Amino acid sequence: MSSPRKQLRLGAFIPATGHHVAAWRHPDAHADGGHSFKHYQRVAQAAEAAKFDAVFLADSAAVWGGASDLASLSRSAHAAAFEPITLLSALSSVTEHIGLIATVTTTYNEPYHLARKFASLDHLSGGRAGWNLVTSANQAEAQNFGLDAHVEHARRYERAEEFIDVVTGLWDSWEDDAFLRDKESGVFVDPDKAHTLNHKGKHFSVRGPLNVARSPQGYPVRVQAGSSEPGKELAARTAEVIFTAQQTLAEARAFYADVKGRLAKYGRSPEHLKIMPGLFPVVGRTQAEAQAKFDALQDLVHPTVGLSLLSGMIGGFDLSKHPVDGPIPELPASNGGKSRQALLLDIARRENLTIRQLYLRIAGARGHKQLVGTPETVADLMEEWLLNEAADGFNVMPPHLPGGLTDFITLVLPELRRRGLFRTEYEGRTLRENLGLPRPENRFARRAAGAA
Amino acid sequence: MSSPRKQLRLGAFIPATGHHVAAWRHPDAHADGGHSFKHYQRVAQAAEAAKFDAVFLADSAAVWGGASDLASLSRSAHAAAFEPITLLSALSSVTEHIGLIATVTTTYNEPYHLARKFASLDHLSGGRAGWNLVTSANQAEAQNFGLDAHVEHARRYERAEEFIDVVTGLWDSWEDDAFLRDKESGVFVDPDKAHTLNHKGKHFSVRGPLNVARSPQGYPVRVQAGSSEPGKELAARTAEVIFTAQQTLAEARAFYADVKGRLAKYGRSPEHLKIMPGLFPVVGRTQAEAQAKFDALQDLVHPTVGLSLLSGMIGGFDLSKHPVDGPIPELPASNGGKSRQALLLDIARRENLTIRQLYLRIAGARGHKQLVGTPETVADLMEEWLLNEAADGFNVMPPHLPGGLTDFITLVLPELRRRGLFRTEYEGRTLRENLGLPRPENRFARRAAGAA
Repeated sequence: MSSPRKQLRLGAFIPATGHHVAAWRHPDAHADGGHSFKHYQRVAQAAEAAKFDAVFLADSAAVWGGASDLASLSRSAHAAAFEPITLLSALSSVTEHIGLIATVTTTYNEPYHLARKFASLDHLSGGRAGWNLVTSANQAEAQNFGLDAHVEHARRYERAEEFIDVVTGLWDSWEDDAFLRDKESGVFVDPDKAHTLNHKGKHFSVRGPLNVARSPQGYPVRVQAGSSEPGKELAARTAEVIFTAQQTLAEARAFYADVKGRLAKYGRSPEHLKIMPGLFPVVGRTQAEAQAKFDALQDLVHPTVGLSLLSGMIGGFDLSKHPVDGPIPELPASNGGKSRQALLLDIARRENLTIRQLYLRIAGARGHKQLVGTPETVADLMEEWLLNEAADGFNVMPPHLPGGLTDFITLVLPELRRRGLFRTEYEGRTLRENLGLPRPENRFARRAAGAA
Repeated sequence: MSSPRKQLRLGAFIPATGHHVAAWRHPDAHADGGHSFKHYQRVAQAAEAAKFDAVFLADSAAVWGGASDLASLSRSAHAAAFEPITLLSALSSVTEHIGLIATVTTTYNEPYHLARKFASLDHLSGGRAGWNLVTSANQAEAQNFGLDAHVEHARRYERAEEFIDVVTGLWDSWEDDAFLRDKESGVFVDPDKAHTLNHKGKHFSVRGPLNVARSPQGYPVRVQAGSSEPGKELAARTAEVIFTAQQTLAEARAFYADVKGRLAKYGRSPEHLKIMPGLFPVVGRTQAEAQAKFDALQDLVHPTVGLSLLSGMIGGFDLSKHPVDGPIPELPASNGGKSRQALLLDIARRENLTIRQLYLRIAGARGHKQLVGTPETVADLMEEWLLNEAADGFNVMPPHLPGGLTDFITLVLPELRRRGLFRTEYEGRTLRENLGLPRPENRFARRAAGAA
């Protein structure tokens, strides 16, 4: 029975051992998941069997958490893991339907390499690639790429704006029907359907064409994760999915209206940008069971890990000199992820949290929406946000892996399906088709059609 | 029965449709192989079933052949294809034993990204990754990365020397036993076994550590393809496999002695560098059958394609204004692949070839050893080079795919095995073990052991 109800889009955001900072210590967690392909294969195949739109990977081109002091990393499971593009490429050949979204920063990469790798992944996967654009919020990355300090926020976004234009321009290097491969005549490609970008801008000079054919989706799905003012504007102009951190229905509705309201000036339809807040669900058959699961994870958080996590999330400021059971000190504005710092300080002040309470508050969801409850309460929240223009779906953040994802699949998805809010079969062949996003026309083909 | 004879190492060098410039027009060729994962999967699995040491992919971070004139590309099958690292990652999950070697240039990349992706591929594949270092010989690449002209040869090698030191330093960021993952104590990694590189050099400033654990092979196998003077010196210091173009036994012996003779001053054993010339075999059950196969391919070469290939191989000089049946004009020294230009001009002068004859001469092997013959004559050459210190093995370049590889597997390999020159089963689990290369110690662990 096909449902006339609005449908949720669901991502499975799958860091190695799960999202909770102590997840790797969970008895069922695969502590070596970050370097175990078998682990990732099972998780991705489980998400595919459950009909998730995509798996989603975060990224940092440096050891997470800053690495300013290696000793502080000793309790972190995030120091090292697979690189996302290689991992998703490997997963592409053991999955068939699920989307494959990798995060890559524009600040320390070259657009030609990025356009090429994502186009290649889109071909390898038959149209399932997505690129989550970030501009980095990590001082440690700068130091791996010849800089002493992180690039300043406004300049990062200026570069990102030009970067994504170069990348999408390269993705249009070849029209969809450029490759003839006519053995008889010996003509492999129609030169009239090949286009040299010749981009010359402030940050980049890129000639093109790309040496990958136009990919099954035209462009891999463009995802954006920044929620600052320039981040929202970049998303309104170029993104097709936004991954965002929202705490309350009211805030999420405001964000949703804000971003969707910016689309018209770029000639875009609100339906062509899907807003998917992060959701960290701890699910039990009863509220008590859910709470017990959560408490068991919280009990595993060592203060060193909590402080290091919090420090990384607020722009790298060291909080270890301040009393852990005292208030959050005044902090200068971050040059890292601005929207994330503001969000956390906001939570701390609103709820009058100590440093310890704040790190325990983010030990699971890191500022994303956290919900400890029954399948019904989780489904209630998802339905409420979906039907009240607060979200088009969610990026689901399992507390630990694989168990936290299994809980969501076996407990929450049946409830969502009972309510007619989530698919039982994939609708399309590509990520774009499943998300309900249009396939972009090639700009040159469009111009030629317009001129005809 | 294990053989006491010296063993050949064999790579399968697998460009999309094969090595012959007209291969894609062959009736059996998969003309869409460059963007068909199924095609590559079958080819890689066939090479693995035949016990090749590795598959090998070339690369250019630009459209092959220069792309100065898109019309001239219309007959080329090499304008666009999968990007090698994504392709090998995808192949890693559908193969079990065969090595996966990708070419990546040091001239237009960052060492942190490269170290990370190859370490990740080494983990994904269980120890089967190899990196073929090149410094690019392609003007078009420069223009995709903000430069007007290609970086000058000496400077490229200066950068490459520093690049590979940074990469190998990053691969030692973690000692092999650094990751404890002790759920009970909550210690994930031993901080005494984590090492920050803090590299500050002329070309790079890279802090580290790498955010991938030390990989199964310690380092992915380091391959090198330049045969110029700085190329040979770089290889003697850092490479474990050399892919080289050699025409005669005498030349190959001289190259072999030259490079192996340079190892002692770096404290290296000659056995720890495998020299594998390219070999383009056109095999038939009789000489006449082999010749007919070759002629059929040569007949498919369009002059535009031949001229474009030749031009690209000699440093980008346009030969289309010169009479195609006249001699090769005098050319200025190339800033591209120096050794390749010299090799081709040498062939042309030695054999007094016209432009057309020279492009037909390289239409298959592009300056590598070409042999049109029976299984016995191909095996004779391989045996002779192996036993006379001209080669430790070969990088086999099938004329077309999949048929040219099938011919080699079904006709030549049985003959090599009859002679006891090639394995019937893989000896080891990793590429390094199969090639007979030692697993490098971590430099920090070594120092600690030395200090103890």
